[in-house]
Amino acid sequence: MARVVVDVMLKPEILDPQGQAVQRALPRLGFEGVSDVRQGKRFELEVDGPVDDAALARIHELAESFLANTVIEDFTVKVEEVVEAGK
Amino acid sequence: MARVVVDVMLKPEILDPQGQAVQRALPRLGFEGVSDVRQGKRFELEVDGPVDDAALARIHELAESFLANTVIEDFTVKVEEVVEAGK
Repeated sequence: MARVVVDVMLKPEILDPQGQAVQRALPRLGFEGVSDVRQGKRFELEVDGPVDDAALARIHELAESFLANTVIEDFTVKVEEVVEAGK
Repeated sequence: MARVVVDVMLKPEILDPQGQAVQRALPRLGFEGVSDVRQGKRFELEVDGPVDDAALARIHELAESFLANTVIEDFTVKVEEVVEAGK
């Protein structure tokens, strides 16, 4: 069992109204020194069995076709945690 | 300048309908072996100046009061990238 994280963010050149709304609110809330905020999605996938190259390729394919809109979004795939069965 | 990432996820005991919808669709799309999917938010903050303990504490406070609803969500704060000024 392993946890694979897929992070999906808008491409840098795409306007991020949600991120901008957060950023504009920060000074009003007393938080200075944050020059930019971008907001995206984080998916945590619990994957059965070993996360070998083949499994990662499948998850990459899944992210590309289903979790991200690759016209406007970029994504990254990371293995975060490997839980040994039976420990 | 540094990039600080705030990940906001629903607490494990909270039902995640979005994550479940993704997980139920996977077999239909030909993706097997993913036993659970949870969906959350990822915030990338570009912070001016050094990210010392005081800055991290402020960002932790910002996340707790503004980016996450701590009744139903957990959050983590990570420094992802430190860009030296002028490099």
